[in-house]
Amino acid sequence: MHIRCLSTPALLLDDERLARNIRRLAARLAPFGVGFRLHAKTLKCVEVARRAMTTPGGPVAVSTLAEAEWFAERGVLDICYAVGIAPGKFERALALRERGVALTLLLDSVEAARALAEFGAARGHVFEALLEVDCDGHRAGLAPADPDLVAAANLLRARGQRVTGVLTHAGSAYDLGEPSPQAFAALAGQERAAVVAAAEALRAAGHACPVVSVGSTPTALFGEDFSGVTEVRAGVYLTQDLVMAGLGVCHVDDIALSVLCTVIGRRGSDGALVTDAGWTALSRDAGLKGRFAEFGYGLVQDENGNLLAGLRVNETNQEHGLITGAPGKAVPALPVGTRLRVVPVHACATASGFETVHLCQGAEEKASWPRCRGW
Amino acid sequence: MHIRCLSTPALLLDDERLARNIRRLAARLAPFGVGFRLHAKTLKCVEVARRAMTTPGGPVAVSTLAEAEWFAERGVLDICYAVGIAPGKFERALALRERGVALTLLLDSVEAARALAEFGAARGHVFEALLEVDCDGHRAGLAPADPDLVAAANLLRARGQRVTGVLTHAGSAYDLGEPSPQAFAALAGQERAAVVAAAEALRAAGHACPVVSVGSTPTALFGEDFSGVTEVRAGVYLTQDLVMAGLGVCHVDDIALSVLCTVIGRRGSDGALVTDAGWTALSRDAGLKGRFAEFGYGLVQDENGNLLAGLRVNETNQEHGLITGAPGKAVPALPVGTRLRVVPVHACATASGFETVHLCQGAEEKASWPRCRGW
Repeated sequence: MHIRCLSTPALLLDDERLARNIRRLAARLAPFGVGFRLHAKTLKCVEVARRAMTTPGGPVAVSTLAEAEWFAERGVLDICYAVGIAPGKFERALALRERGVALTLLLDSVEAARALAEFGAARGHVFEALLEVDCDGHRAGLAPADPDLVAAANLLRARGQRVTGVLTHAGSAYDLGEPSPQAFAALAGQERAAVVAAAEALRAAGHACPVVSVGSTPTALFGEDFSGVTEVRAGVYLTQDLVMAGLGVCHVDDIALSVLCTVIGRRGSDGALVTDAGWTALSRDAGLKGRFAEFGYGLVQDENGNLLAGLRVNETNQEHGLITGAPGKAVPALPVGTRLRVVPVHACATASGFETVHLCQGAEEKASWPRCRGW
Repeated sequence: MHIRCLSTPALLLDDERLARNIRRLAARLAPFGVGFRLHAKTLKCVEVARRAMTTPGGPVAVSTLAEAEWFAERGVLDICYAVGIAPGKFERALALRERGVALTLLLDSVEAARALAEFGAARGHVFEALLEVDCDGHRAGLAPADPDLVAAANLLRARGQRVTGVLTHAGSAYDLGEPSPQAFAALAGQERAAVVAAAEALRAAGHACPVVSVGSTPTALFGEDFSGVTEVRAGVYLTQDLVMAGLGVCHVDDIALSVLCTVIGRRGSDGALVTDAGWTALSRDAGLKGRFAEFGYGLVQDENGNLLAGLRVNETNQEHGLITGAPGKAVPALPVGTRLRVVPVHACATASGFETVHLCQGAEEKASWPRCRGW
């Protein structure tokens, strides 16, 4: 089916670019002999995940329990819930584990470890937990030398729970002042050093620590040393986006995701094209600091996916997108009804508005897949 | 049920504040004897709309055809689709009208009018259309004096379609440099003048123009003259948000919407509280220019809805929110598992992530209602 038959806005995934992005990371990681755990949080779609996971059953990382439940129902059984779990979610995690899902939980304090240990002991269940390590001060995790790391592991062990290892995420990769391959490689080294040090601290306390997990798309693609690491996680590399292009992690023409929209009018004052893709479709994510003038809320392609140089989505309202040109660049007076595609600033945020993703080859839809939403 | 039994993040709607906000606008508009059409785009929830609509069957304005279908299935039959329609959506609009829904469409060019007129004539259907008038250069609409306004109406009439009137929206109310009651009243005057002039131009060309529609929450609440106007539209006034509070349209304690979340940890470097409400729950909307330092991605309340002065959500990742204090203000070391509420910056954007809204009285859930999503 031609994509012009789709109701707009619609989320398109370019099959060829997706395959290329998957091959790129696989080729990059192969020489290191390190494991790979896909992070599913961008598309939250099992059919897409199957293209990238090393087996049909996983492994996968997820950002919500709703995703864990969604993937488990579809035969993916090796799942890491890679966000520190709130105690109110223990019941749902238990239900998944009792169904046979190898669900690993993430903890980053003695307090959280105690809560899980008490719940597990009370319910007669042995949970598997990773301890989160802070490698860059970004948000969560314990410093590798923090005595609470070993204390949390000991507390879990004392209540019969399993500590399977350590996990970190170099979230600061997206905020680097001067991003470059060298800077990402250095940050990957920092990720590795933090998590390996944490694993050693745990091993010194008698915890086997079989899992040593790192990851972010920039550090996965530019890391040069994964010794001591057992698995690398990455997610947005599947689709890439303008944040990644702005960081130099990919080129704009590697971006596999776009939002199909329709021109509904033109603004009288400046000829801006008005489309039916507002912020519900594109998200309010304005991307990298200082790059808004270049990328706006998205670059613009024609219906076939060819970039229309100089155009960008400069404003969004709830259901209106306004496309303008670079300074001095006229906006073509495209007719009402013209289909365009918008290349997303932040793929995860853009995808989150959609319940369906359409796999495309050029302007042909090849498949239509459901996405998981909510929590 | 106590809200602590809800899985987080969850969208809460305070029943008392909702009722107060509804009464405020109704009382404000009553002396003018003008009609009221609720805009449903914020909560997209028929149970909420029934509190504010003048009858159980409407009238209502919607921002997507999915909302029109959703409301029609639930007995709301007087619907204005208040976004310029893309030709690809005519079939769905026709299907609704053939089911007996009084669905009015919005057009703002001769080109769009021709497309609808040709479709209607080809399908033997008489559509009802409003012409969109530009009152402030915000995005869409024809200037009142633009000859295309009458040309579009004539073209529709010539093909047997019904032009029911004119509609405008003072979207620039949200961008006023110096917002004040006087500035909103002046803008309401500008809205009124534009749409009344457009109606007069149409009447001079022999179009009866029974509908003269204006609206935005600030102009609806502060307008001082609605003569010649037949209906006022407003939506976000139901819940209000920090954008509206920042503009002086409401007080922070008028805001009826919040996101219930759970503390999952604390950041080592600064003690920031880490919660499970990231940007999927709060949206990436950063609100009014220059007010981020004050409001962040949301202010913070305790579980019972009492504001915790000085705290705000300062950073969000996909599933992590980071709460910090104002400069010099310490962040309380709340235990893991503590429930908090986040007061939204932009209610429409925050609500859009949720499929359910929980009506609450204090910390008691009184009802749980589904929301429409998608397009």
